[in-house]
Amino acid sequence: MVDYRERLARLQAKMQADGAGLAVFGATDTMRYLTGWVEHGHERLIGLFVPAQGDAAFVVPAMNARQAQTNPAQISNVIGWSDETGWTSPVETLLTEWNLHGKTFTVLIDEELLSGHLLKLQALEPQARFSSANETATALRQIKTDDEIAAMDAAGTLIDAVCEEIAVTLREGDSEEEIQERVHSLLKRHSTKASFIPLICFGENAAHPHHHPGAIRLKRGDIVIIDIGCLWDGYPSDITRTFAFGEPSDPDAKAVYEIVSRAHWAAREAAKPGTTGAEVDAAARKVITDAGYGDYFIHRTGHGIGLSTHEPPDIVASNTRPLEPGMCFSIEPGIYLPGRFGVRIENIVTLTQEGVVSLNAEAPRTLRIL
Amino acid sequence: MVDYRERLARLQAKMQADGAGLAVFGATDTMRYLTGWVEHGHERLIGLFVPAQGDAAFVVPAMNARQAQTNPAQISNVIGWSDETGWTSPVETLLTEWNLHGKTFTVLIDEELLSGHLLKLQALEPQARFSSANETATALRQIKTDDEIAAMDAAGTLIDAVCEEIAVTLREGDSEEEIQERVHSLLKRHSTKASFIPLICFGENAAHPHHHPGAIRLKRGDIVIIDIGCLWDGYPSDITRTFAFGEPSDPDAKAVYEIVSRAHWAAREAAKPGTTGAEVDAAARKVITDAGYGDYFIHRTGHGIGLSTHEPPDIVASNTRPLEPGMCFSIEPGIYLPGRFGVRIENIVTLTQEGVVSLNAEAPRTLRIL
Repeated sequence: MVDYRERLARLQAKMQADGAGLAVFGATDTMRYLTGWVEHGHERLIGLFVPAQGDAAFVVPAMNARQAQTNPAQISNVIGWSDETGWTSPVETLLTEWNLHGKTFTVLIDEELLSGHLLKLQALEPQARFSSANETATALRQIKTDDEIAAMDAAGTLIDAVCEEIAVTLREGDSEEEIQERVHSLLKRHSTKASFIPLICFGENAAHPHHHPGAIRLKRGDIVIIDIGCLWDGYPSDITRTFAFGEPSDPDAKAVYEIVSRAHWAAREAAKPGTTGAEVDAAARKVITDAGYGDYFIHRTGHGIGLSTHEPPDIVASNTRPLEPGMCFSIEPGIYLPGRFGVRIENIVTLTQEGVVSLNAEAPRTLRIL
Repeated sequence: MVDYRERLARLQAKMQADGAGLAVFGATDTMRYLTGWVEHGHERLIGLFVPAQGDAAFVVPAMNARQAQTNPAQISNVIGWSDETGWTSPVETLLTEWNLHGKTFTVLIDEELLSGHLLKLQALEPQARFSSANETATALRQIKTDDEIAAMDAAGTLIDAVCEEIAVTLREGDSEEEIQERVHSLLKRHSTKASFIPLICFGENAAHPHHHPGAIRLKRGDIVIIDIGCLWDGYPSDITRTFAFGEPSDPDAKAVYEIVSRAHWAAREAAKPGTTGAEVDAAARKVITDAGYGDYFIHRTGHGIGLSTHEPPDIVASNTRPLEPGMCFSIEPGIYLPGRFGVRIENIVTLTQEGVVSLNAEAPRTLRIL
């Protein structure tokens, strides 16, 4: 059982310490983290308003009010607004009750709230200072409990099995889209679903880290990248494996794979409590740069993972914060050679006092030929 | 062939007329409308920056730069930013080149841009005035071309057929989730896909306009709501039909259906060039209120539709703008009786000089018994 009241209390304690008067969250994973409930309102505001002291309130479209009242955090103040009158007037009333309206105070804003909603809040409270809630939300969310890690470990074990089944059943002539569908159907058989759109890349498509799988068909000699994840108890997994389908047609594929593997392990070994995301990123980048491929490693080494598949801490040069036990993140260096192929090796890890523990099975250190 | 250059020129003409110096769009349907390209960056900024005069620029993660360069609007200034340095510095350089940085000017902001990005832009340009780009984007997008209407008409015809096939194949014991899957598989057979998650409600679940279909099974006497849509040439359809599965177990179901049908037609007849969204909404609402169910019609009468399934013009009391020929929107009044059942009847229509033309086949005026 998640103790949502404890999470809200930690938020308010941090708000008081930081001098924030109000925090506003949109229909995001932070809302889900704090209350156990979220519903996407699309252009309609679904907001969680948390004062520094006292009870939080939901502000939701009238037609979502009954759903919001079922929130596991048992927040009883659910304000339903109608399409006729909009939400600014009920929010003005709420902030007046909280003795904030018209005052000078700091509002922490969920970075994923839509700008249209933020602009209206800014117009409603022109005296207030609006700043990102990201630091605060990160402080709450980035150290995982054992239950959270156990859920991600189970999600990791399941996606490992699915990835292996996909790899060994690949056949010449399969299309990327067909493999995507196979991932969905395997996950469904396991009573779960994908945590993001399965990314399947054949041949030179593997050179695009964010390729959209299409009708292209697998042929002998292709490099294959499989980047997939699934949910377990609401928590995601995320794994990337690179294979060759038959002897690789590109003569550099095996060597590039081994460079990425060494970069992956260099990052894994660099990650200890007290080292920074930047240092872990640098460890992976150094291997790739020293091998002459620095310009082809075009993304960060990793991203944090929790209720959101991408959340802090980033493993990137700009993250100079020390890593702490209980953090969970990906290690996923890659090399992308336009028009030729790409290689990425990704595991999710959790940090302990001794270093990282992987939540995925290990990838081979040399290019596996299917 | 869409003339994206013409769309960008119309945007800039409107910006000049309104005195805006810059417009910033996120990874949204407005980006797709203006450039033919969009890619979701999640927490990473994918932005279209349009100055009042001169060439627009894309600001995208480095790994999306090659994709962005393929944009059909042939915008050649694609600025790739790296995870290491972030995007604020390249944007500062861009705005300096455009002679805007540090100046006092108006920035129009895509309402769907994430607040985290807006907060960073506000910090970068503290002298600037930030306001919603919604009016501007609406002015550009709300009058549809014949090609756009033809695409939505085709999407409507297809979803009509799918809805009918779903209705006639319903069997006792089917679950809501199974019917959702059936919708997906029928759409796939027609080489397309859903424009939103199919909404299937049995029995008292029909009383929730935004119900999540689940494992509940269809039984004799249930009211069934099917609210589905699909894409055609990138444009969506959206239809809602309400049926009874066998003689309805609730004695008021037939009468409530007929009230909603009369409300639907009252709105259809009220919609003419020059009448407002508010007047059309009022026409539907009056029928339902006069019948004693005003408190149970808990949403707007309709929403505009185009590249986005929900876009202006809203058919709602707060929309006092006159409707114009070429606008496309839903007419979807409903009555929701908690713990009992609900009824909603939705067609997409386009406005002509004479009134509305439906892009869906007509619903029966009395409750259809399956």
